[in-house]
Order: sequence, then structure tokens, then C-alpha cells
Amino acid sequence: MRRRRIVTRLGSGYGPGMKKLVLAAVVALSFPAFAQTSNQAERLRDSALNDEIAWDIVEGLTTEVGPRPAGTEAEARARDWALARLKALGFANVHVETYDMPVWVRGEERAEIVAPFPQRLVVTALGKSGATPAGGLTAEVVGFDTLAELEAAPDAAVKGRIVFVSHGMTATQDGSQYSYYGPVRRTAPSIAARKGAAAIVIRSLGTGYHRNPHAGTQTVAAGVTPIPAGALSLPDSDQLQRILKRGKKVTMRLTLTPRNLGLRQSGNVVAEVRGSDPQAGIVLVGGHLDSWDLGTGAIDDAAGVAITAAAAKRVMAAGRPRRTIRIVWFGAEEVGGPGSDAYLAAHKGEKIVFVSESDFGADRIWQMKPGFAAANSALAGRIEAALAPLGIGRGTDPAEAGADLGDWVKAGVAAVDLQQDGTRYFDWHHTPDDTLDKIDPGQLRQNVAAWTAMLSLVANAPEEIERKTPAP
Amino acid sequence: MRRRRIVTRLGSGYGPGMKKLVLAAVVALSFPAFAQTSNQAERLRDSALNDEIAWDIVEGLTTEVGPRPAGTEAEARARDWALARLKALGFANVHVETYDMPVWVRGEERAEIVAPFPQRLVVTALGKSGATPAGGLTAEVVGFDTLAELEAAPDAAVKGRIVFVSHGMTATQDGSQYSYYGPVRRTAPSIAARKGAAAIVIRSLGTGYHRNPHAGTQTVAAGVTPIPAGALSLPDSDQLQRILKRGKKVTMRLTLTPRNLGLRQSGNVVAEVRGSDPQAGIVLVGGHLDSWDLGTGAIDDAAGVAITAAAAKRVMAAGRPRRTIRIVWFGAEEVGGPGSDAYLAAHKGEKIVFVSESDFGADRIWQMKPGFAAANSALAGRIEAALAPLGIGRGTDPAEAGADLGDWVKAGVAAVDLQQDGTRYFDWHHTPDDTLDKIDPGQLRQNVAAWTAMLSLVANAPEEIERKTPAP
Repeated sequence: MRRRRIVTRLGSGYGPGMKKLVLAAVVALSFPAFAQTSNQAERLRDSALNDEIAWDIVEGLTTEVGPRPAGTEAEARARDWALARLKALGFANVHVETYDMPVWVRGEERAEIVAPFPQRLVVTALGKSGATPAGGLTAEVVGFDTLAELEAAPDAAVKGRIVFVSHGMTATQDGSQYSYYGPVRRTAPSIAARKGAAAIVIRSLGTGYHRNPHAGTQTVAAGVTPIPAGALSLPDSDQLQRILKRGKKVTMRLTLTPRNLGLRQSGNVVAEVRGSDPQAGIVLVGGHLDSWDLGTGAIDDAAGVAITAAAAKRVMAAGRPRRTIRIVWFGAEEVGGPGSDAYLAAHKGEKIVFVSESDFGADRIWQMKPGFAAANSALAGRIEAALAPLGIGRGTDPAEAGADLGDWVKAGVAAVDLQQDGTRYFDWHHTPDDTLDKIDPGQLRQNVAAWTAMLSLVANAPEEIERKTPAP
Repeated sequence: MRRRRIVTRLGSGYGPGMKKLVLAAVVALSFPAFAQTSNQAERLRDSALNDEIAWDIVEGLTTEVGPRPAGTEAEARARDWALARLKALGFANVHVETYDMPVWVRGEERAEIVAPFPQRLVVTALGKSGATPAGGLTAEVVGFDTLAELEAAPDAAVKGRIVFVSHGMTATQDGSQYSYYGPVRRTAPSIAARKGAAAIVIRSLGTGYHRNPHAGTQTVAAGVTPIPAGALSLPDSDQLQRILKRGKKVTMRLTLTPRNLGLRQSGNVVAEVRGSDPQAGIVLVGGHLDSWDLGTGAIDDAAGVAITAAAAKRVMAAGRPRRTIRIVWFGAEEVGGPGSDAYLAAHKGEKIVFVSESDFGADRIWQMKPGFAAANSALAGRIEAALAPLGIGRGTDPAEAGADLGDWVKAGVAAVDLQQDGTRYFDWHHTPDDTLDKIDPGQLRQNVAAWTAMLSLVANAPEEIERKTPAP
């Protein structure tokens, strides 16, 4: 059934990538070892379409732990949960690697228009936000449609005021507007602080029209003391824009009382599928265990740790692979990456030959971006061929991995990105709405199937997996 | 263009109602006075598809006033806003009719699972809820899947506990599940109180999977002192169900601190299009001006007051109608209807010959339910014929009007229900998400067009509009 579907898809013509695909298939068939790994990957892929492991992890972690902000007691409970679950799944070498990190926690949050049209707006503090007095601060609002307008504004236009930056991120399949508009969240608070603003509120860096603002961290520029910085939900941002357009002086009272708790312990949870050939290097995959505090972190990123662990478990169940597969459930991704920094520092001397990361929800994978040395183009082709029946095409950009494993790619390690559909992702990302009901079990299974096929091919590749650039 | 579309629709056959429709058209053409009113209604209908009046009202009221809970200072500001806008639109006899009513206001609200899986849940107090101590109350949760299960439970199973009632309202075009599942919100709190519960939380009476619970009032049974009563958002309700299914003792800390403020002033805002024939009776239409406090009341019910006022304005602009059209923007609908009660008591002696109400959002009208005496079946047919080109069919149930004008229908007054599509309505109704962005301008215009045609036909009907049942 599944195989017939493949034939149909191939027969219907696959466009520009078709020639390469056929070539890869021919090559695979010409070399029995390659063909064997492809056959196994296809079998594992198809059975993974009935996967329950990933759902059980997402459901369990989001229900039994819920929100798990970095460095808090909840993240510690999540690590305990992860250790127990990974051991129960039969992985080897299950352990935590801890590190210390500065912890910031949310306090009270409230915004209200005092004049001319008194009403509450829904706000949430951005990570690392400064605090207002407990009773709030009241100031005139000055609005900017873009970050460039804020940057161009004279200090006098901003000083002592509450800056409001609106902008128009929209939903796209590849989620690329999150990068384009990202500076509004990441750098605007420091820009406003340098100009003497009392506080800043931004239109949430998101796409969902609900009264649920999007949290997220900021980059505090050197020498800047963070001012109170919040995100308004999209309906509230629209409302403030409409109010400002009336041309009257707009006054807001903003109350944000987050606190810095100093250094606390966080950690990465590690598990392995032991490989048969220690010389072949380690395949490193994962997602992150921490989440923002507002939701239960189902799409960000219980899904990612679940998908990668389920795929590794399925490869393990088919017999010991050639290469060790190491799963890392990173801590503290949401606050800027102390978990991935600690991991890289501790393990950069190891023979990590391949990395791949899942941190973009659980909607269906639509694109595979390979990031291999030229010598490994046949392996890329085998992965492409194995994923095509799942509706996954090959992208043109090179793999980058994400926040937790991107530095390995930059250092020259081979990688594959399995790109999820991001159309709905920024409706919920970093909001209270990131909850289990947003996970579609069928699409989650497609993710597991793609990851299982890819991991099986990479872990069992008979050829060596080369670096893209020579080791430094 | 518009007319050609009508011909096409008629020519394609309209199913069971077709015969009556043709009959009505034939009757209309046989009597010049009827045909004239039909022609005018059609012209007004088509130009109303470009209406801007209704949007301006919804946008203005939700932006410049925002939330306007009954009996509060915000509702008073809404009345001032309404008076100014209705006068500016050129209506006659614009005034407020006040009354006093008991006012309940929301306080702090917080729910958290203390054990076995500590985490916050999102809750909002139901109207008339009792208050917990300021620091909250902590008790074991006992779950019931249905109201019947709660009713059947022995007092001992409930006493001192926090009752949780989940249930499964789903979205339907006619919104009928709001009635079927309504008792879970309206009567369950009193049932739980009588059995000695410490508090109650229910699954929100709504359909939107966001962390925005649905407020709404309850009916406090005789002799019952309200206990703290809240609604969980749907994702939170699912979460609590999953936690309970683990079979461990579940403890919740619930903090709800609403207050009763005693009697305060509220009011109905009234405006008229003066008719030429005082003997022909008054056509009474409207919606409600108050809203729940969490959103800006765009769909509930800025839309309703906007649609009815825009339609009346358009009829007025076409020349003085035979009958006076009276618009009422009712106060205090959300809390159980002191506004409509006051209005009925003060005006029941007047010759009100027809009522119609808009209080179900602004999505397209799909059904017209007439509620006329048999003697007025030709008028019903003319309305049906005028609405069919807008994609509106005739329903089989009789008109009922809504919370504000339903008592007039029960007393025998003729009515028409223009039934809006409710598929999305309960995603947002009574939640923070009831905001302007949920109004689709194109669908809002279709509403205005239907209302304009209907109002024009009713206000100008050459025949008398009879009571459905004789006056008592």
C-alpha cells in the first residue's frame, strides 16, 4: 500500500528534483549495503506512521509537568520526568548535565489606557524586562510603526514616555517573518532605553488574533539597564493603534514586576542509542525541555523532544545502529541558550559527525534541507528518496539546525533540517495557547516517520560522514 | 447586476419554499402598493451592501469605550457615546431611560493545581460568583462529566470539595448547543452549593481552544448563597480532565474575589425614525449596549446595535416610513435583563406591532424565521423574497427574538428573527477575544442589507401588522 503510493508519486513526476532522485535510487540499488539501509529506513518510516511514543511524551510532559521555565523548580521536575521516561524507553547512558544560569521570573502584569479612552490592554513582560514600581508607571505613549522609525526618532520624542512599536508579522509556511521582525522584540527595548524611554510595549511577535500576548526574550545591549518591556496581544496592539490614530494624547499605566533571582541550576538531559562502530562518530539530535511560563510548551518544544526521542527509539528497536545516536533534551533554550552553550563547551572534543534539531512544533514536515559535504551527496539523495513519499521535498538552502545545535553546523558538522509547516506556529508560540490541543496526532506521526527514516539512514550509513569544512 | 443575480437565484430553483416565494412575488406584483414597498426594499438592500455606518459604530464603540459592564462607569460612558452617535446620525427622540440594578464586579482570579502536578490553570469568575478568601481556598477536586452526574452525586461526595463539571459543547451553525449545555453554567453552581461544595469550576460554555475562559452569568436558586464559581478555558478544562484521569488525589487552590457593589444606575438608550402614520404602530428593534468586562464586546453586542441602527438610518434616509421605527440599545443584558424588564414595564401599554433583535454577532445571516399572524403571511413572503438574493432562506421554527425582546414575542407581538451564522460565535462570546478583529466587514454589510430590506418592508407595509395572539 505504502509502496504503491511511492510508485504513484514517482510516476507522477516530481519536477526539478526528479533526476537526482532517480539517480539516488539507481545508486542505492547498485550498492547492496546502501540498498539495505534504504530498505530498512523505508520499513521503519512506514511503521512510524502508527507511532504512539511521541504523543505519549508530549501528553505526559505537558500534563504532568506543564510549564517549565528555565532554571525554575518546574524545569527541575521536567528533568526528573525526562530521566524516568528516557530510562523507561530503554535508552542507554541516561543522565543530566547541569550548569548554572541567571534566572528571571514574571511578576504582575497590567496595562491600561488612562486617557482618552480608559480600558485595560493585555500585556506580558518580555524576558529580562525591567520592573515598574509595584503601583505601575504612568506616561504618555509615543507610537512607531517600525523599528527604523524608533531608531530615527530624536531622544526628546521618546524621553520619559512609553514607546509603542507596532509592525506586521504575518504567517508564512517557512516562518521566515519571525527572523525579519525579530529585532522589534530583541533589540527595540535597548534602543528605547538608550533614548531615555520610561518603558516599551511592542506588538507581539506573532500571528494569532487572540488576547494572548507572545512572551520571548530580548538581547540587552552593552551598558543598558533594562527598562520595563512588554508585548501586547495583536487585538490590543490594533486597539492602541486605533486609539493613537484619533490624534489625542494617550496616557498608559503600565505595571510589570518581574524579578531577577540570580544564578540557579538548570541542565541538559542526555540519552543514547549505543552504536556498533565507535569510530563512525556520534549522531546528535534533540530539542529543548524548557518552555515559556505562559503555556505548557506543547509545540515549543515538547513536540521536538518527543519526535526525536520516538524516532531514536524506533531505530534502536530495529537493531543496534552503526553509529551512536545521542539525544539531548536541552535546558534553558528560551532564555538565550546557556544549555546549548554548556553542552558545546563540554563536548566539542568528541567526534560528533551529524546534528539535527526539532524545534518548530509538530505540524507536517514539508521540506528537507541537507547540509552535507560534497562527498556525502549520495547519503543526501537516499534521505531525499526516503522522505519524498511523506510529501517532503528537498529545499535549496543549506541546513542550519536551530538555537541548540546551530553552533555545531557553523563549526562544520553535517546536518539535516526537517522543516515543519510554520503556518500556524506563530499563532501560539510563546503564548498561553501553546497547549496540547494544538498538536495534531496525525501530523505528529508524519514527523516521527520522517525523523525515523532520516535517523536510520544517517546512523547506519556505510560511508563516512564528512565535515562540511575541515576541523579548526 | 444585482437584479440579474436575483433572477439567476430564482431561476435555479429554491427547493420547498419556491412555490410560496413565487406566490408572494405574484401577489406583490398584483398590488401596486405592495410592489412599491418591495421595489424600495430591494433598492435599499442593494445599496446597503456598501454600508459604512455599522462598521463605524462597532469600531467607534469598541475603541472609544471598550468593555462596558452593566451598571459600571464604563456602561455610563457607553450611553453618552451612544447618545452622541445616534443624534449625529439624525435620529429623533434620542434619550436614555434609566433604572437601578445590583452590580457585581470581578476581582482577582487564579486557579492552580497544588498536587499532584503543580501548575496554573486559567479561570474566570462566573457572574454572581461568591468570593474565596483573598489568599484563595484549597480543596480536593471532584470531577463530573455531566450535570446529571453532579445532580445524582451524594452530598458526601461533594461536601467541602471543589466541584468540576466538564461537558462537550461544540460549534453549530444555529448555536443551539448553547441552550442544551447552558445549565452547566447557569444552574450547576447552585446545585453544587446545595450539596455543600466549597466551590465549583466548569468547562467554559464555549467552543474556542484558547486560554480565554468564557464569562457569563448564573441563576442563583432560591435560598442559595453563591459559592465561588469559575469557568476554565477549554485547554485548561482538558488539562484538568487528563490530570484527574491519572487517578491520584487532585488538590486545587482557587482564588476568586468578586464583589457586589449594591444598586447602581444603568439605562436603555432610545432613538426613533418617526413614522407618518401614528395609527400603524411602532416597530421596535435593537440589541444591547452593555458587554462582558473581558473583551470589548464587538460581537456581543456592538454588532447588534450597529446593524439595527445602520438599517434604520438607511430606511430613514429613503424617506419617512409609514411606521415609527424605534431603536433601543438595551443596558444590562448580560446580567439577566434588568434593562429589558424595565423597558417592558414602562412601554407595554404602547402599540408595539413588531419586534426584532440582533444579538448573535456579525457573521452572515443564513436564515429568516418569520413570526406573523396568518393574516400577515403575504408580508412574510415579501420579506422572504427580498432576503433570498442574500443567501437567506426561510426557517421552519417561529421567531423568538432574544433576551431583550423575547418577552414581547411571548406576549403575542409579531417578529422576525434574522439568524446569523453561529459557527464561530462561541469561540469568542464572553471571552477576552470578543474584539473588533472578529468582525468581518463583508459579512457585517450582508447583515445590514438584510436588516434594511426587512425593516423597510415592515415599516412601510400597507396592511396592518396583526398580533399573533389577541392582546391579553
